[in-house]
Amino acid sequence: MDFNTQARAARAASIELVSLNRATKDAALHAMADSLAAAEPSLLEANAIDVATARGNGTPESIVDRLSLDPGRVSGMVQGLRDLAALPDPVGDVVRGWRLPNGVRVTQVRVPFGVVGIIYEARPNVTADAAGIALKSGNAALLRGSSSAFNTNKAAVAALRAGLEGVGINPDAVNLVEGGREVTTEMMQARGLVDVLIPRGGAGLIQAVVDGSKVPVIETGTGNTHLFVDASADLDMAVDIMVNAKTQRCSVCNALETLLVHRDVAEAFLPKALAALGEHDVTIHGDEAFVRASDDVLPVKLEDFTGEWLSMDLSAKVVDSLDEALEHIRTYSTGHSETIVTSDRAAADRFVAEVDAAAVLVNASSRFVDGGEFGFGAEIGISTQKLHARGPMALPEMTSTKYIIEGDGQVRA
Amino acid sequence: MDFNTQARAARAASIELVSLNRATKDAALHAMADSLAAAEPSLLEANAIDVATARGNGTPESIVDRLSLDPGRVSGMVQGLRDLAALPDPVGDVVRGWRLPNGVRVTQVRVPFGVVGIIYEARPNVTADAAGIALKSGNAALLRGSSSAFNTNKAAVAALRAGLEGVGINPDAVNLVEGGREVTTEMMQARGLVDVLIPRGGAGLIQAVVDGSKVPVIETGTGNTHLFVDASADLDMAVDIMVNAKTQRCSVCNALETLLVHRDVAEAFLPKALAALGEHDVTIHGDEAFVRASDDVLPVKLEDFTGEWLSMDLSAKVVDSLDEALEHIRTYSTGHSETIVTSDRAAADRFVAEVDAAAVLVNASSRFVDGGEFGFGAEIGISTQKLHARGPMALPEMTSTKYIIEGDGQVRA
Repeated sequence: MDFNTQARAARAASIELVSLNRATKDAALHAMADSLAAAEPSLLEANAIDVATARGNGTPESIVDRLSLDPGRVSGMVQGLRDLAALPDPVGDVVRGWRLPNGVRVTQVRVPFGVVGIIYEARPNVTADAAGIALKSGNAALLRGSSSAFNTNKAAVAALRAGLEGVGINPDAVNLVEGGREVTTEMMQARGLVDVLIPRGGAGLIQAVVDGSKVPVIETGTGNTHLFVDASADLDMAVDIMVNAKTQRCSVCNALETLLVHRDVAEAFLPKALAALGEHDVTIHGDEAFVRASDDVLPVKLEDFTGEWLSMDLSAKVVDSLDEALEHIRTYSTGHSETIVTSDRAAADRFVAEVDAAAVLVNASSRFVDGGEFGFGAEIGISTQKLHARGPMALPEMTSTKYIIEGDGQVRA
Repeated sequence: MDFNTQARAARAASIELVSLNRATKDAALHAMADSLAAAEPSLLEANAIDVATARGNGTPESIVDRLSLDPGRVSGMVQGLRDLAALPDPVGDVVRGWRLPNGVRVTQVRVPFGVVGIIYEARPNVTADAAGIALKSGNAALLRGSSSAFNTNKAAVAALRAGLEGVGINPDAVNLVEGGREVTTEMMQARGLVDVLIPRGGAGLIQAVVDGSKVPVIETGTGNTHLFVDASADLDMAVDIMVNAKTQRCSVCNALETLLVHRDVAEAFLPKALAALGEHDVTIHGDEAFVRASDDVLPVKLEDFTGEWLSMDLSAKVVDSLDEALEHIRTYSTGHSETIVTSDRAAADRFVAEVDAAAVLVNASSRFVDGGEFGFGAEIGISTQKLHARGPMALPEMTSTKYIIEGDGQVRA
């Protein structure tokens, strides 16, 4: 099916989704879960083909791992759909409301976007996850996965659609977008047909979508996150937060990438920090002060400050002041999550006010910047843009609003 | 000054604006107002040059009228700035907040976008208005007005900047973007330097910005608005609402453009409607049923349904059902404001649920869809997109949010 036909079918389905109540949508999510669970054998078979092809193409094992399914991972996808059914429905929520002086009632309510396009890399779990989040928020989904996961995604979407059909819902609510790269371009041009595009994946994918899309985009994710240890910091607390933010899971967007230390505490803090990071086999790329402090520190290069490590590496630098820390963060931050450890209220207040990021943390680990940790129950990604949603995005962020204006014949004077 | 230098200066100013409290910003707005009032002679002189040039170029009088200033219009611009000072400051407003199980506090607060670009046509009042709204919401403004208003805008911005300097605020908070068309293109490419672009003007301008911009855009305005007179409508109420929506001010985006009438009431409603519209010299472009009803009705053409009249013209059609009305609106609506007049709860509910627009009205005139009528006090435009803001946009819509996360050393398990 060509993309335009598919997108029109999704739009037609989206009109039906708008009016479904929560009970119906929750039943659909359980039906999708049941159908996916029943399809496990065909899903694993399809996945085995994708994995074999990927290995044959010399794909790195870390990427093959992301692509691979096993019964445990399929169960995770199934459970994810059931968990969504337990969450409140954002559609219809009243955001605010009031009466005009003439008695006209104005109510702003949450409504689905309509058709949501999700462009993602070779993680088959995103297929079920994104389909479920879209359905619960009343949106039809156009899922554009990686070609390397094509067979897996095709089997998964077939199962999800069968689940929808079983409960009498238009299966065009969930669609796998097929075809070559030119189809991604068509998707990005489809303003009016697709209401919002959400890229999920690495920096390259996100940049390509942001640059090429005429459809409004919600930019998710890259996090070049910093931790500033202020002059007044509790140094043991700073060590704990630093180690947790760097090592608890180093491959994710809210993991620590650059450590900034106030010169006044450098002498006391660096030995503690180096010892703790050494225990976790973190490779430190530091400035002169760090290099002087340990033979294990590699000299930091300018480019080490510009991107994400996403590994057990850490850039590190001593700064002369809060101002210098703020300036460094302003220069290199991707606006995701930035942390200060301090005992000084004024320093905390300035850091919170002046750092321009989705999340600013005081005396806590940046690993908390996460939909799950926030208690959202579901997460479609972490927005690093300022429009619409910023930070972890869950079901309410998958909606727009509409003003309902009700009178009994009022006209404007 | 080249655009990039100017945008960087605006960004530097925006960092200072973030931390200004309301009292400081309100004092700045009054200083801008005083300075603009004092500059009235130079403003009128500059405007006379623009008006003479426009007339010399054969510009239509309706556009020359928009461009023209007189002492009354200057007073309006000055008063607009003072009115903004009386409105609450959205920056710092807590949107929501909660504690994580481990005691970490999460607070979502409103923050300025940073740098806002506004691209608009030859209405000099937008210069003061947009500068004031940006300042009150803590944003630096890059104002890109029409070249035909260049001298006027230059004089106005000089006065506004002098007002800011007088109270010790960085004048780069308000900037007039100068240069040819290539500068508009630079502005649309400046992702990272400009946080959001808001085009204000006709459909052509808005489309060009939406299509060409890599900076996130808030699409404002075109309104191809419909009124559906349902089978159960109170016909006198329908006449009042129709006449008000069409004639109270026909050149604006919330004015009525197409009338749809349920066949069951056509025989009773058409004579009333035609008589009332005739009194206001409205030209009706109607389908066969309307043409049969009066010799004054012109036969409607397909293209009459697709765009805005913005004049005392009205497209009109009889439909067989609510379904046909919904389908017509789905096909031609620009998603601005759509109205049903009905006494039937079920019809109203379906219309409200299924019509995909910023505002859906039941038994009230679409002329209420307006920031001023909503009681917002200020309006930067009416968003017809689904991302970020939909409907009338005021000060809160000129902000983003930030999560502030505060702990006493918590780390993720």
